Amino acid sequence: MNLSRLSLLLLCCFVWSAARAEDIQSPNKQLTLSVNLQSDGVPTYSLSYKGRPVLKTSKLGLDLKGTTSLTSGFSQTAAERRTADESWQPVWGEVKTIRNHYNELAVTLTQTATKRVMRVRFRLFDDGLGFRYEFPRQPELAYFVVKEERTQFALNGDQKAFWLPGDYDTQEYSTVTSNLSEVRGKMKAATTPNASQTPFSGTGLQTPLMLKSKDGLYINIHEAALIDYSAMHLELDDKNFVLESHLTPDALGDKGYLQTPCQSPWRTVIVSDQAADILESKLVLNLNEPTKFKDTSWIKPVKYVGVWWEMITGKSTWSYTNQENIKLDSIDYKTVKPNGTHAANTAHVKEYIDFASKHGFDAVLVEGWNTGWEDWFGKHKDYVFDFVTPYPDFDVQELQRYAASKNVRMMMHHETSGSARNYERHLDTAFQFMNKYGYTSVKTGYVGDVLPRGEHHYSQWLINHYNYVLEQAAEHKIMVNGHEAVRPTGLSRTFPNLIGNEAARGTEYEAFGGNNADHTTILPFTRLIGGPMDYTPGIFETKVSKLNPSNTSFVHSTLARQLALYVTMYSPLQMAADLPEHYNQHLDAFQFIKDVAVDWDDTHVLEAEPGDYVTIARKAKGKNSWFIGSSCDEQGRTSTIKLDFLESGKKYVATIYADDKDAHYEKNPQAYTIRKLNVTRKSKLAQYCAPGGGYAISVVEAGK
Amino acid sequence: MNLSRLSLLLLCCFVWSAARAEDIQSPNKQLTLSVNLQSDGVPTYSLSYKGRPVLKTSKLGLDLKGTTSLTSGFSQTAAERRTADESWQPVWGEVKTIRNHYNELAVTLTQTATKRVMRVRFRLFDDGLGFRYEFPRQPELAYFVVKEERTQFALNGDQKAFWLPGDYDTQEYSTVTSNLSEVRGKMKAATTPNASQTPFSGTGLQTPLMLKSKDGLYINIHEAALIDYSAMHLELDDKNFVLESHLTPDALGDKGYLQTPCQSPWRTVIVSDQAADILESKLVLNLNEPTKFKDTSWIKPVKYVGVWWEMITGKSTWSYTNQENIKLDSIDYKTVKPNGTHAANTAHVKEYIDFASKHGFDAVLVEGWNTGWEDWFGKHKDYVFDFVTPYPDFDVQELQRYAASKNVRMMMHHETSGSARNYERHLDTAFQFMNKYGYTSVKTGYVGDVLPRGEHHYSQWLINHYNYVLEQAAEHKIMVNGHEAVRPTGLSRTFPNLIGNEAARGTEYEAFGGNNADHTTILPFTRLIGGPMDYTPGIFETKVSKLNPSNTSFVHSTLARQLALYVTMYSPLQMAADLPEHYNQHLDAFQFIKDVAVDWDDTHVLEAEPGDYVTIARKAKGKNSWFIGSSCDEQGRTSTIKLDFLESGKKYVATIYADDKDAHYEKNPQAYTIRKLNVTRKSKLAQYCAPGGGYAISVVEAGK
Repeated sequence: MNLSRLSLLLLCCFVWSAARAEDIQSPNKQLTLSVNLQSDGVPTYSLSYKGRPVLKTSKLGLDLKGTTSLTSGFSQTAAERRTADESWQPVWGEVKTIRNHYNELAVTLTQTATKRVMRVRFRLFDDGLGFRYEFPRQPELAYFVVKEERTQFALNGDQKAFWLPGDYDTQEYSTVTSNLSEVRGKMKAATTPNASQTPFSGTGLQTPLMLKSKDGLYINIHEAALIDYSAMHLELDDKNFVLESHLTPDALGDKGYLQTPCQSPWRTVIVSDQAADILESKLVLNLNEPTKFKDTSWIKPVKYVGVWWEMITGKSTWSYTNQENIKLDSIDYKTVKPNGTHAANTAHVKEYIDFASKHGFDAVLVEGWNTGWEDWFGKHKDYVFDFVTPYPDFDVQELQRYAASKNVRMMMHHETSGSARNYERHLDTAFQFMNKYGYTSVKTGYVGDVLPRGEHHYSQWLINHYNYVLEQAAEHKIMVNGHEAVRPTGLSRTFPNLIGNEAARGTEYEAFGGNNADHTTILPFTRLIGGPMDYTPGIFETKVSKLNPSNTSFVHSTLARQLALYVTMYSPLQMAADLPEHYNQHLDAFQFIKDVAVDWDDTHVLEAEPGDYVTIARKAKGKNSWFIGSSCDEQGRTSTIKLDFLESGKKYVATIYADDKDAHYEKNPQAYTIRKLNVTRKSKLAQYCAPGGGYAISVVEAGK
Repeated sequence: MNLSRLSLLLLCCFVWSAARAEDIQSPNKQLTLSVNLQSDGVPTYSLSYKGRPVLKTSKLGLDLKGTTSLTSGFSQTAAERRTADESWQPVWGEVKTIRNHYNELAVTLTQTATKRVMRVRFRLFDDGLGFRYEFPRQPELAYFVVKEERTQFALNGDQKAFWLPGDYDTQEYSTVTSNLSEVRGKMKAATTPNASQTPFSGTGLQTPLMLKSKDGLYINIHEAALIDYSAMHLELDDKNFVLESHLTPDALGDKGYLQTPCQSPWRTVIVSDQAADILESKLVLNLNEPTKFKDTSWIKPVKYVGVWWEMITGKSTWSYTNQENIKLDSIDYKTVKPNGTHAANTAHVKEYIDFASKHGFDAVLVEGWNTGWEDWFGKHKDYVFDFVTPYPDFDVQELQRYAASKNVRMMMHHETSGSARNYERHLDTAFQFMNKYGYTSVKTGYVGDVLPRGEHHYSQWLINHYNYVLEQAAEHKIMVNGHEAVRPTGLSRTFPNLIGNEAARGTEYEAFGGNNADHTTILPFTRLIGGPMDYTPGIFETKVSKLNPSNTSFVHSTLARQLALYVTMYSPLQMAADLPEHYNQHLDAFQFIKDVAVDWDDTHVLEAEPGDYVTIARKAKGKNSWFIGSSCDEQGRTSTIKLDFLESGKKYVATIYADDKDAHYEKNPQAYTIRKLNVTRKSKLAQYCAPGGGYAISVVEAGK
């Protein structure tokens, strides 16, 4: 420690008394945060909204390994306040400009016994709170190991929760809607027979966690800017309704290896008495750092089709043969009998390219193009893929030429099977291969147990890996859509080439038994709070048996609602996931998928209630066209909206793609109607939504 | 399984009865191997030498995880015999040509209950036995996890052993010489206070393990061709004197992840009634696969000096500053005060280059040239080095130019601090950097705990890593000298760019309290059985306090013995480890280091007894010169040798560098004499060796 810093600290000690309370308010004064130190030096905070408690006194701190924990014995040695009000433009997004407006309180805490300093920085926005731990460079704390983070979120009694079981490796669960007091009883049933689902406790929950209090407050708890730290879950004390942070452990059970100066991710609490405000919040993005990319011109939203759903349903296969035990370094595929069901063959892919080109899609994803799919899963296989060797029937060069001639790009697929080291070893070569053959985006996959063994999809090791992949991809001007990776935390502000993630139960599960009919009325409040999801909507043929007679699954959605998802499930990367042959049977409805934008200048949430319905209107980037989507639960309803977001004095034509009267997600999903209306900003609309249904509307200026 | 393979198996079943004994003999018939199946289908083997038991009935097999173990219930379904007699020329080595002559027995075992097939392949050489498990491609065994290998080596009673405590991460122990029955009692004292020393049990031992039976048999147990498997230790049953394989676990405690077809490394048992035969054995090399490198012209033995011993002794530092907590991605060294003790500065390195050039050395190693040394150790630091950024006072380009102008090469140093992922991420860039600046060899280091956490230096994950580095290095025509990596297993036959390893207590420990005076009379029988060691001999100033007054360590060797080590401690990579200023004080003795070869056409072990003495003569590659080295223990002795390996009818001049009469490794280490003699193949020599001493002789043709 040098003397100037020491004297600064001493000065602070002099100025601030040992324990005192600090309050700040949000810019609009509706949120109030109180920060306090208990008599034993335990730091706490509490939060209220319009005078109603959001979080009661909640403790802060971290347990460290092998040394005094940073949980008590603190005195406050400084408190700094600051206000920020700035605007920034995302490379892509739901709105053109994002306002970042908050009051900040940074409380510096010194642990008397250890002379260690920890700062807790709070940012209070109109739509919620973000706070993080900061560990300045200091003589008494250089390297340390986190045993557990002890951040509490003390709720005001039992609340309705939209939750997933806490799991270190997957978020591919159906959301359970219940009171928190019911979590323990419902945990077992919440787990479906899937080898990857392993809840870490009887009351562990994932974030983003959506809550609704008995007095009508909507509360969302998540994290922002997850970098070089393990992902946070929440452990529920279901007697006191206190949630506490539970970090993902590494192979040794440790939760994080840190070196000062450093900080935790932001812990976020979005709160409002209006559900729509939760969906419109940009708090998570605002808490991420601006991008350092100097050139972002190569990052472009993408609408795509792909050789995918036919394998998901079991109609065709990723693998080229039925051989069960292969080694990449010795197999000669030319000597092995093809299975005849391999979808990623040159002729078939050309059909997709033709379809994409005809209908104006940007790209064609092809899964199963590269060798290794015969035994890629569940084997703990280290060298599982090399990411550059095509099967004999997939002609990379010819398909690149053909796609380019049709003004379509190929989209790369890198399944890693969780073998992170193997992927890193091949990364540079794989990205060079993409550059050579004109691929500009990659869908990555991390199915199955992680290698290195003992690590988890959400442990610091893998978090570090995902970000490394993003950085390396950016070096090659490659966009990344990460599947089975950690759920996003707004990192796309910093790494705008992260154009998508899965990290939830996507459309694929419609072929694995189905998603709940209300699934897409919940995801915007949970998973999507962190960032866009590659949900892959647009399934027109909802009976999976039509593709694979042995698969009795069906899509729990009407066809009209499949269209709505392109608006309600925000993503700069949108797939038309069904087969061309199915779109060809409904080209009138397909027109909406062709028309809908994937990048936006403005967004209005028109109606929203988690688990019940979501209706959103978005204005296409650089155009005076709007697209509206509405999704409802299994009950059905009539949606009533106003079009007052339209420009004053202008006339528009609305094309409404809606459920027919007798539509039903299971019994009659393909019953839809399409009608046109002349509308203005004074127009109102009452639109029927079938059970598991919804509607989509395109609104374009009349005469354009 | 296809039908043709099935019928072959059935045929075998028909031909061979369920349980029968198979015997083979070594080509010279002195060794006899018996392979048997117990009535419970447990496979066993035993070995005798000249009718004396070497290994009594010893069990074979592996425990598997989550499935039936491959330990019992076998019947023999085939046995194939084969004889091989071939010769091959190593890229570098102790002899010009190596004979690979063995009788082979491959016993195919089928486990009745599981229909699984395991083959045990035995190769019986004149100098010992090698055997391995082979797991052919088969329907009932594709992927499997090894819980433990259960290979026994049932010794014939209590024996004298030269042993190191079994440890998953280091072999940097002093050898303990004791009877096996004394191991348990001596285990605690065998561990020195070094954070990295963690014996895995009270009776665990490392390989190569050197044994001497009461009836005078010398037995060495090790392994060959360690690839994609974890390193083997030995667990001692000290009542029955049975050693059993103990593999290094991964982070989950598993011992190996395998996929058929595959095999274990070879388990090796070298045996003779002459200690010299153990040292001359090429069994371990012979059991490795021939190299696949098409071009080996870039692989050349190296004699080098380096900026190293001065840091080891504490005279100077690797680090450029005394700052304690640094981050590579944010520190600006130009703003930090240098500590003034940084050895790897341009001017100082030029002094080493001048010295190397003047005395005909090939290369100059420089450690501490790159940023990050301030807190590189013991921090579990992930991004610890980037391998390409020099400290501000180290001018890579200028030194490259200067060295080239002096006909000397720079030798690269890559300390990884055990952070294997970080090294792999930077590997390609680091090797490109070496190519750019003319570095042709790299000393790698793996000090401290391994990352990924929970893995070990000797677990399959790291074994895979080391071999990956070798392969990538070969792509860049780079030679590797791996420190703190796993001990070698003859892999240099397959990867001749592996020109050195540490993996034992090297000369550096002479500055850390000292090595036992008999250390170098044991290492040739233990560590060196697997491959060459970068022992870094040649310390002339044996009092470390002369470099660093606070360091009271001294080298446990006379100066004359330091010369002998260039011959007795075979390596194609030899360092003159002391400082130029010390060599300048003894240029007459230094002449031997200048003259001694690093590659050989022939080798004769003239005298040997583990722990007592080793005397070896070697013929320089492509020349008619010989070099002789002799090292003895703390007792001192008179060495008596014949020069009958010299060419008949030729006259030679021998220059003898020997201990003076009153020399002593501690009290009078620098007392040496140099004398010249005319010799022929009929000459005999009786040469005094001081306690902890020895001698070195160069023998050149008279008039040449």
